[in-house]
Amino acid sequence: MHNLAMSEGARPLLDRVVKHITEHCDPAYAAYEALEAKKTSRFEYAPGQLEIIDGLKAKAKEAGLWNFFLPNAETGEGLSNLDYAYIAFELGKNPLAAESMNCAAPDTGNMEVLERVGTQEQKDKWLKPLLAGEIRSAFAMTEPDVASSDAKNIGTRAVLENGEWVINGEKYYISGAGDPRCKIMIVMVKTSPEAETFRQQSQILVPIDTPGVEIVGPMTVFGHDDAPHGHMQIRFTDVRVPESAILWGEGRGFEISQVRLGPGRIHHCMRSIGAAEKALDLMIYRGLTREAFGKKIIDLGKNMETISRSRIEIDAMRLMVLKAAKAMDVLGNKEARIWVSKIKAMVPEKCCKIIDDAMQVHGATGISQWSPLSSMYMKQRTLRFADGPDEVHHHVIARAERKEFENSNERVAAAKAETEGGGNIFDGP
Amino acid sequence: MHNLAMSEGARPLLDRVVKHITEHCDPAYAAYEALEAKKTSRFEYAPGQLEIIDGLKAKAKEAGLWNFFLPNAETGEGLSNLDYAYIAFELGKNPLAAESMNCAAPDTGNMEVLERVGTQEQKDKWLKPLLAGEIRSAFAMTEPDVASSDAKNIGTRAVLENGEWVINGEKYYISGAGDPRCKIMIVMVKTSPEAETFRQQSQILVPIDTPGVEIVGPMTVFGHDDAPHGHMQIRFTDVRVPESAILWGEGRGFEISQVRLGPGRIHHCMRSIGAAEKALDLMIYRGLTREAFGKKIIDLGKNMETISRSRIEIDAMRLMVLKAAKAMDVLGNKEARIWVSKIKAMVPEKCCKIIDDAMQVHGATGISQWSPLSSMYMKQRTLRFADGPDEVHHHVIARAERKEFENSNERVAAAKAETEGGGNIFDGP
Amino acid sequence: MHNLAMSEGARPLLDRVVKHITEHCDPAYAAYEALEAKKTSRFEYAPGQLEIIDGLKAKAKEAGLWNFFLPNAETGEGLSNLDYAYIAFELGKNPLAAESMNCAAPDTGNMEVLERVGTQEQKDKWLKPLLAGEIRSAFAMTEPDVASSDAKNIGTRAVLENGEWVINGEKYYISGAGDPRCKIMIVMVKTSPEAETFRQQSQILVPIDTPGVEIVGPMTVFGHDDAPHGHMQIRFTDVRVPESAILWGEGRGFEISQVRLGPGRIHHCMRSIGAAEKALDLMIYRGLTREAFGKKIIDLGKNMETISRSRIEIDAMRLMVLKAAKAMDVLGNKEARIWVSKIKAMVPEKCCKIIDDAMQVHGATGISQWSPLSSMYMKQRTLRFADGPDEVHHHVIARAERKEFENSNERVAAAKAETEGGGNIFDGP
Amino acid sequence: MHNLAMSEGARPLLDRVVKHITEHCDPAYAAYEALEAKKTSRFEYAPGQLEIIDGLKAKAKEAGLWNFFLPNAETGEGLSNLDYAYIAFELGKNPLAAESMNCAAPDTGNMEVLERVGTQEQKDKWLKPLLAGEIRSAFAMTEPDVASSDAKNIGTRAVLENGEWVINGEKYYISGAGDPRCKIMIVMVKTSPEAETFRQQSQILVPIDTPGVEIVGPMTVFGHDDAPHGHMQIRFTDVRVPESAILWGEGRGFEISQVRLGPGRIHHCMRSIGAAEKALDLMIYRGLTREAFGKKIIDLGKNMETISRSRIEIDAMRLMVLKAAKAMDVLGNKEARIWVSKIKAMVPEKCCKIIDDAMQVHGATGISQWSPLSSMYMKQRTLRFADGPDEVHHHVIARAERKEFENSNERVAAAKAETEGGGNIFDGP
Repeated sequence: MHNLAMSEGARPLLDRVVKHITEHCDPAYAAYEALEAKKTSRFEYAPGQLEIIDGLKAKAKEAGLWNFFLPNAETGEGLSNLDYAYIAFELGKNPLAAESMNCAAPDTGNMEVLERVGTQEQKDKWLKPLLAGEIRSAFAMTEPDVASSDAKNIGTRAVLENGEWVINGEKYYISGAGDPRCKIMIVMVKTSPEAETFRQQSQILVPIDTPGVEIVGPMTVFGHDDAPHGHMQIRFTDVRVPESAILWGEGRGFEISQVRLGPGRIHHCMRSIGAAEKALDLMIYRGLTREAFGKKIIDLGKNMETISRSRIEIDAMRLMVLKAAKAMDVLGNKEARIWVSKIKAMVPEKCCKIIDDAMQVHGATGISQWSPLSSMYMKQRTLRFADGPDEVHHHVIARAERKEFENSNERVAAAKAETEGGGNIFDGP
Repeated sequence: MHNLAMSEGARPLLDRVVKHITEHCDPAYAAYEALEAKKTSRFEYAPGQLEIIDGLKAKAKEAGLWNFFLPNAETGEGLSNLDYAYIAFELGKNPLAAESMNCAAPDTGNMEVLERVGTQEQKDKWLKPLLAGEIRSAFAMTEPDVASSDAKNIGTRAVLENGEWVINGEKYYISGAGDPRCKIMIVMVKTSPEAETFRQQSQILVPIDTPGVEIVGPMTVFGHDDAPHGHMQIRFTDVRVPESAILWGEGRGFEISQVRLGPGRIHHCMRSIGAAEKALDLMIYRGLTREAFGKKIIDLGKNMETISRSRIEIDAMRLMVLKAAKAMDVLGNKEARIWVSKIKAMVPEKCCKIIDDAMQVHGATGISQWSPLSSMYMKQRTLRFADGPDEVHHHVIARAERKEFENSNERVAAAKAETEGGGNIFDGP
Repeated sequence: MHNLAMSEGARPLLDRVVKHITEHCDPAYAAYEALEAKKTSRFEYAPGQLEIIDGLKAKAKEAGLWNFFLPNAETGEGLSNLDYAYIAFELGKNPLAAESMNCAAPDTGNMEVLERVGTQEQKDKWLKPLLAGEIRSAFAMTEPDVASSDAKNIGTRAVLENGEWVINGEKYYISGAGDPRCKIMIVMVKTSPEAETFRQQSQILVPIDTPGVEIVGPMTVFGHDDAPHGHMQIRFTDVRVPESAILWGEGRGFEISQVRLGPGRIHHCMRSIGAAEKALDLMIYRGLTREAFGKKIIDLGKNMETISRSRIEIDAMRLMVLKAAKAMDVLGNKEARIWVSKIKAMVPEKCCKIIDDAMQVHGATGISQWSPLSSMYMKQRTLRFADGPDEVHHHVIARAERKEFENSNERVAAAKAETEGGGNIFDGP
Repeated sequence: MHNLAMSEGARPLLDRVVKHITEHCDPAYAAYEALEAKKTSRFEYAPGQLEIIDGLKAKAKEAGLWNFFLPNAETGEGLSNLDYAYIAFELGKNPLAAESMNCAAPDTGNMEVLERVGTQEQKDKWLKPLLAGEIRSAFAMTEPDVASSDAKNIGTRAVLENGEWVINGEKYYISGAGDPRCKIMIVMVKTSPEAETFRQQSQILVPIDTPGVEIVGPMTVFGHDDAPHGHMQIRFTDVRVPESAILWGEGRGFEISQVRLGPGRIHHCMRSIGAAEKALDLMIYRGLTREAFGKKIIDLGKNMETISRSRIEIDAMRLMVLKAAKAMDVLGNKEARIWVSKIKAMVPEKCCKIIDDAMQVHGATGISQWSPLSSMYMKQRTLRFADGPDEVHHHVIARAERKEFENSNERVAAAKAETEGGGNIFDGP
């Protein structure tokens, strides 16, 4: 459990990924960005942009860098979560990198689910084109009308009528559903309200062009629509899909969520840490290149201490994420979920703080278009809600700790002895 | 100094302001917003919008609610800063309120400066139309290339040639310069690099349509351009204005800055506190109207404590701002500047925290277009840079405290006695 | 409510108090401390110490400085809580000052209660000698076996038998009960377990030498016994007092607690703020008189910012305490109790932080006997539990805020409009 | 560098250590404590106490558990720092454990220094009895009159006269010098004020009974003297030791400090983490066994979140300490010193927070003699000064990070590109 080193076997892959990013993705992204001004519609790509992405995909496939996200899987490289974490850190450095190697969210989670619990028919129809990078996908979980971090609250209903699921409800913040290439959604629905709490939900495959699916518009994040990817508000009105569109069977919606844990959160957290590293570098650079009151800004006030504290927290976060990845490898996704909650509750909050400190060192430039910091901040701030707000994860962690304590006679006895010794157990500092 | 109550005399004015806002500004703003979609250019008003503003202005003038921002002045109502603070809190509740009564920044500061140090010619030309609400104005201080919180760094140069000031340099984050009605700027320049440090700068009136003034484009704030008001990047290339355009004389740029302190910061801080109050209400409302895990969200985890802490900090901030206003009334702007630094360093940071906590209670909706919270957050975050970053104000406060300590024989002697008593001065808790 | 200035009438009293402290208490305390080494028993005074205290009392009485703590009372000066707050700040500067003028806790609260709800017999027997400064007293509320911040938990029982209350139970942290001059306790007991929740408790006068009262020993605070004052653990075994020893009648224990609010908390908070002021001065002094790495310590790292933040928080706390005192004057103790909770939850926590920062600036000396800081820290840390932990006060504040929100149609409607406007209410920063 | 697992080879040692502690140290400590009341003098052991310690030592030697602290050394077990870290965590669980196996500070650091840089004569005279556990020792570094975290400030002078070093100066907080068994001190002195900054200091062996060595008395920590170990104030007046008493040669005082890094800090940090773990358990136990307001305290307010945050921080700290130990193994003490600074700056501060939170959950009992928490708090708070205050370590870390950044063309170029791209590099969240 404590060996957090990358395996020797995975190193060559890491090297090839780095090479692919610096040699191909970095120049491609500059070209991609230059085309941005030619966009005529928010939720379309500019002419030429998709060609750039497809070109990168071809290069990645050629180099054998494709679908390696899937941990311990037959498909792909069969990387451990720990090895993937090291690679994910690199993927975060270029916005096109992950997609170019077919390792981009939310497709990764969807492919993982399909591979593990999909029927052959489901795999043929959706997993195949996803693995080929021909289409994209979305995962529709969060709802505007309820606190959907409490899964019992899921309000979107699916009712079986004449061999079809009829779906009604509303979802929002469906990331990726704005992409014109997005063809399929996995939708969390309530199928069995009368079943026990964690057997009431199911996940269903819904093609995005099914009649009754209405993309109301983009939800914004601090006023931004993140087009063309988008975080969409989607209304389902009498949407009908065949009975066979259900994943793994009725009432297994929760179980599937636990399968889904896999690479996604590790990936996200490693990218967050990458953002924090970049913020730290920007903070130092700014501090070294500006002067005020006769000194470099880095030498003013608490700035050096802020740098140190950022360095320490980044190092600690990285070790925690590697440890969580290792836990997934060793204990399996289910047992490791406390570790995943730990990094989910720890990393985005601390990264927000580091980026915010970096903004402060920059003065007004830090929140302007001349710096990526405010963009990075908004992204990290958003992650404190995605997949459940921090508070839900803290609750999961505390509940597990409490249960572990209660189940440990040794811990209970020791604590009892310390506080009920009767005598004076204070022994000075 | 400790009587922070509003004067009896100012109460009727406050009541009339509240009436004006609720009866006229509130419905007008709804109509104004509805026109937003008809805009054809970012930095223009939509057809009909200016008419709404002008209609409100007429109503305000009619009601005698005009230019009352100027503290202790012959113009306007002659309100004390303390009385104005109470009114400013109300002005913050509607985005059109301040302008409708000609009490909007940055015009307020510019008018105050012109009234106090302007020549008759300058007053006739610029103060008159500003007081009449016919034009708007900007204040050009911050520069992109230097840490301009250290005034010595000001890089924009003005050189006297043939009876004209020739200005070269670059400014950014010039708020309000995007408004098509903005006609005049007060520009901070370096005129006398060889003079002693705080006599090198001057402030000069520059009409925005002077040849050589180039509005490069808007600076953004978390990606937003705040059009049509805007925070503009402006380049000055051989911009020529007559020698008489200088304010108060060469080398008095700093002195003027201290005049300018007046209503602006009090106003800003009171609006910030208003935002925090609103955030608190939104937090409570959300907490009461959502449920998760079988409870109202307000009853989950630390939410009640967060509400209490927000309440306490808001109350403390309000008292501090009233105290600072009172200090300005009693001690004058110069002596009260430490108090102004105190609220400038205290208020936006704490308001950011309160708004951020409110966002967290909302889940993803808190950062979406369905809530004003993310917009409020960005505004408050920006204020931590405006008029000098927090750190500069903390330094001003600490330097004053240190000097006061050093000058107090009594404080020094007491501290010396406590730490150099020689014997054992520890006496247990 | 916002006039926080001291009344003109109270100023002369303040001046005389200051004179008494500097002329008499300060030299007396040095002499008192010098006798400390002659103590033979922890919970006795050293020979000569009580004579010093009595001498000060005589001087105070002579100067008419006696019992002025009682707000708006016939006894004493009839000071407002606000005026008393200004004086309490001075009382905190010398450990003998409060007692020398008969304004020391917990006697102050006990005298206030006796004056307001005591029978003539109770007043004659206990209030008279207390007002004369002839005896001292204690208030026995907290219990070791239950979370006594929840008053329902009170476990000490008093049962009426043959015209006597028979008391059984255990209390701890009974401050002042170690003083050999302490003769009387007011004890919170449960008399009517079958009554409604807040009518089950009563307060009873119990002479400390009543058979069955066993002072088990001192509770310590960070290992210190605070002798001879002490925070005692007391066991009550079949303690019998006459029926007439009950205060205000059976079941009114809670009501009395609200009377008791009076000067005590204001006094405590003002003393805490005095401690924070002293910590700030010590921090500055140390920073100015030490050097490291070629600079004065005050100029290293974040120290100047720490000084500024301390200054701001101290100013804000003082205004809040004055405001709470004013609220008690204007609204009465019951209505003002939210304000009292605000300062109780705010002040000790922030003072702990300021003192802790001052310790850090001192290096190891800061926690040694050469500095009062660690002693001050322990005292403040203890106050975060006294009269209910911070958390209980935060809950009281939040509950009141929530109720006020729910009862305000205006606030609810505004919050509802902001979050359910339906349209896009985000309008950029 | 990322394999943080304990080596297979060291596991049996760990098991034997645990066995020794639970079977022998735990019952012995109870007996030891029971004798405490028989002490007649603060800085002596009670009759029978030393016999208990010696008995444990005999048992440990017998079991081959002796002197294993020395990393990679010929003496002892030759444990890696990483393996020792795991064992150190266990040593922290019983106050007698470390000494019983001759692994107690400050002897450990002194033995390490002597082994590495001592002459044969020095080893024979002092290392031998130390390794045998026959005497104890102290390290005299900190001075009361200067900020001794800046080594240049060292004021204690040693001058060579007639083949003897003559030492004059004052030290304080010399831990362990109060123990009657302490026979030898390593003293940091200034020998060569004219040399370059880091060659001015030397370390000299001074027997504690040398004429001119005056133990003025104990320094206290929050009012406690920590007898008989003690943190002594020591005055050196014309103390004469032979020229051969110098360690490693004149001017090498700093170099030796870097040798000294070895097990000490890892050990301290692992003990701190052990304390935090204990605090967490006490917090949970208290939360589960008390009720207020109709709920278990653990279920009130933010308590569950506090537990989660404590859990996360403890896990992160442990990984960081293991990583630092590994860095020492892989990079050597000198290169790894940034890692040591990281854990020194991180661990005690976070542990203070966790223990403080645990106290708050306990109410008044948390600061009383009925709980070890206040004692634990004081110990951890003290560690924020020991071996340099947090601020010095943060400075070391930031300076290293800054230098590394400046030396990395890649990092500088990337940061420059991000902030000086010229164009609009903001790309939305």
